[in-house]
Amino acid sequence: MADIILVVNAGSSSIKFCGYEAVGAEPRPLLKGQVEGLFTEPHFKVANAAGDRTEENRWPSGTEIGHAGAIRYIAEFLRNHREGHRLVAVGHRVVHGGLEFDAPTLVDHAVLERLATLVPLAPLHQPHNLAPIRVLLEARPDVPQVACFDTAFHRSQPEAAQAFALPHEITARGVRRYGFHGLSYEYIASTLPQVAPQAAAGRTVVAHLGNGASMCALKAGRSVASTMGFTAVDGLPMGTRCGSLDPGVILYLIDALQMNARTVEDLIYKRSGLLGVSGLSSDMRVLLQSDDVRARFAVELFIYRIARELGSLAAALEGLDALVFTAGIGEHAPLVRDRVCRLAGWLGVALDPAANAVDGPRISTGESRVSAWVVPTNEELMIARHTLAATAGRI
Amino acid sequence: MADIILVVNAGSSSIKFCGYEAVGAEPRPLLKGQVEGLFTEPHFKVANAAGDRTEENRWPSGTEIGHAGAIRYIAEFLRNHREGHRLVAVGHRVVHGGLEFDAPTLVDHAVLERLATLVPLAPLHQPHNLAPIRVLLEARPDVPQVACFDTAFHRSQPEAAQAFALPHEITARGVRRYGFHGLSYEYIASTLPQVAPQAAAGRTVVAHLGNGASMCALKAGRSVASTMGFTAVDGLPMGTRCGSLDPGVILYLIDALQMNARTVEDLIYKRSGLLGVSGLSSDMRVLLQSDDVRARFAVELFIYRIARELGSLAAALEGLDALVFTAGIGEHAPLVRDRVCRLAGWLGVALDPAANAVDGPRISTGESRVSAWVVPTNEELMIARHTLAATAGRI
Repeated sequence: MADIILVVNAGSSSIKFCGYEAVGAEPRPLLKGQVEGLFTEPHFKVANAAGDRTEENRWPSGTEIGHAGAIRYIAEFLRNHREGHRLVAVGHRVVHGGLEFDAPTLVDHAVLERLATLVPLAPLHQPHNLAPIRVLLEARPDVPQVACFDTAFHRSQPEAAQAFALPHEITARGVRRYGFHGLSYEYIASTLPQVAPQAAAGRTVVAHLGNGASMCALKAGRSVASTMGFTAVDGLPMGTRCGSLDPGVILYLIDALQMNARTVEDLIYKRSGLLGVSGLSSDMRVLLQSDDVRARFAVELFIYRIARELGSLAAALEGLDALVFTAGIGEHAPLVRDRVCRLAGWLGVALDPAANAVDGPRISTGESRVSAWVVPTNEELMIARHTLAATAGRI
Repeated sequence: MADIILVVNAGSSSIKFCGYEAVGAEPRPLLKGQVEGLFTEPHFKVANAAGDRTEENRWPSGTEIGHAGAIRYIAEFLRNHREGHRLVAVGHRVVHGGLEFDAPTLVDHAVLERLATLVPLAPLHQPHNLAPIRVLLEARPDVPQVACFDTAFHRSQPEAAQAFALPHEITARGVRRYGFHGLSYEYIASTLPQVAPQAAAGRTVVAHLGNGASMCALKAGRSVASTMGFTAVDGLPMGTRCGSLDPGVILYLIDALQMNARTVEDLIYKRSGLLGVSGLSSDMRVLLQSDDVRARFAVELFIYRIARELGSLAAALEGLDALVFTAGIGEHAPLVRDRVCRLAGWLGVALDPAANAVDGPRISTGESRVSAWVVPTNEELMIARHTLAATAGRI
């Protein structure tokens, strides 16, 4: 009887999940699915490892199944549809591990309580990440659950890279730079030794460019700096998030425009970034096909800010050996990579346009002093690996 | 009869001033003074060009002479004590020129009104800068006044360097990166052709490190990027200001710590930076002499952030030819320059420790691919020059 590891990524209105077969050292993908519209019009769909849709279910508009209903449905689906398989562990993506959790952690009620104390640090994400854990702790106490943190990978950064210049009593409350997308960077770091051994051993900047976007400086595979800070809104502009913003702007929005914390939050998380600047779309594919002057400027600003952060991260590494692009835009937008690499010419990047046009994997010329790469990320697999490792001997 | 140009730098509780003799092309310094404690215990003092105290006056504790009383006192002092001289023009440092004022401007009542509309963009500085202008417009309508802006020099930056990734309707209200310390950078740019011709013509980063601190990327003497943004709180950590801060931190301070805009403002402007991190002092000299672990960390963080911003600004320039240190810390703290230059080794900076120990002017070795310099700034002289030029033909 084969063992299944379930990987869960729970957001505010959806739960994404993957099933892996636990055979040998590396988890093997079996299926991938999601439940969307948890509080409006739930829609379940699942595909096999080849990407073919295998199952679908829709609930009537107005149905609220919530995180609890969705995770129970997923567990039931696995039970009914994977005959001969046994759910042996569940791995969860959890955005925030604070300072305490610097590695994947088996979750019991006590750990869940400690994770709940981090909600004020990530109020828009942490509660949703924890909801399915709580449900399964009650419903399936026999199945071990592992929390895998987006922040953990960055705890290796030097203190100066993690600190804001705020008074000690504020810093002591946990107001510091955590960095996020850690599971993605960890996956890339685990893959580089095969793809690009010199990049793996050297000074490498990884640009995770998706709807959320950040960059990370890796020294021999360990994080030494990243662009995201205390929250996932800092750093690069993103689909709808503003990225770096003078804190004085927030005071201006409150004082001069009579905004409050909630309207500011809505502005900087949901109405800014590519969407806000373009006035058109948060989707890079749409913007790249548009001739609209604001759409073009949104793309330009995104690229400019990547180039600036690349210089800043190269400074954290005191030099640069390799540049890696990953995630949706990083893997699939040759034009963005082209422009970033050309702006990085001063650092020693020489683009190979033909290789870039077909998504690499190596997109720099053979003579390029700094190599450039496209490496698809796989955060789900990283969670599955961690879950397998953390539950070894128990399952 | 010699002509005097008065240069005024008005802050919240003090007015600093300089007198220049307008002879030939370059204003010649005559005297320098200030009135401190405008609303508590006013104290007037003035020194001659050699720095010798020539005059002093104290008012009783509790006296409030305000900006109006102080500027009238200064004008009266000049009238009484500079026999044979005539006050022909007054130049003012004005922090904010918005987008409209990209050069020094003669101020009449209409201009003053327009400058007052910028108060929401710089509520802590702009009203104080404008107060003496308003007084003199009434009291001395015969004397032309010139507003010189800290923002004007940066209006040459490309649009992407000036933009936040915010919706158009917010940007259109003037929420953008202005950059400050422009009069200092402009003075350095005007001096570099004599001191370091290659730096003047090339890609140069100037680090203005004083109680306020920022950095500026100059391409052939024109600003292409700077670390300060919408306000003077962004960018590098400063004496009491935090510098760059994840905007999500402000929401956390409001939501989790029940702070409001005023207490946040007080925190990030007056209780952060070197003072906040060290818990000891905002004065770099004090911190450099302390063995306290937090004092040392404050210095380390300051240096680390300069090194990171140097990389980011080098990216804006697509390379680096020269690095210039100026202002209090930049001119007088060899240890800070030493550490920054060593962290900039990857960019091609090779420090000459002996030259650095005696404050330069050139502090890089002869072989250094990137030259490094100490160049004292002189914002007052820059204002005097602008005032002379803007009033030429009128005085």
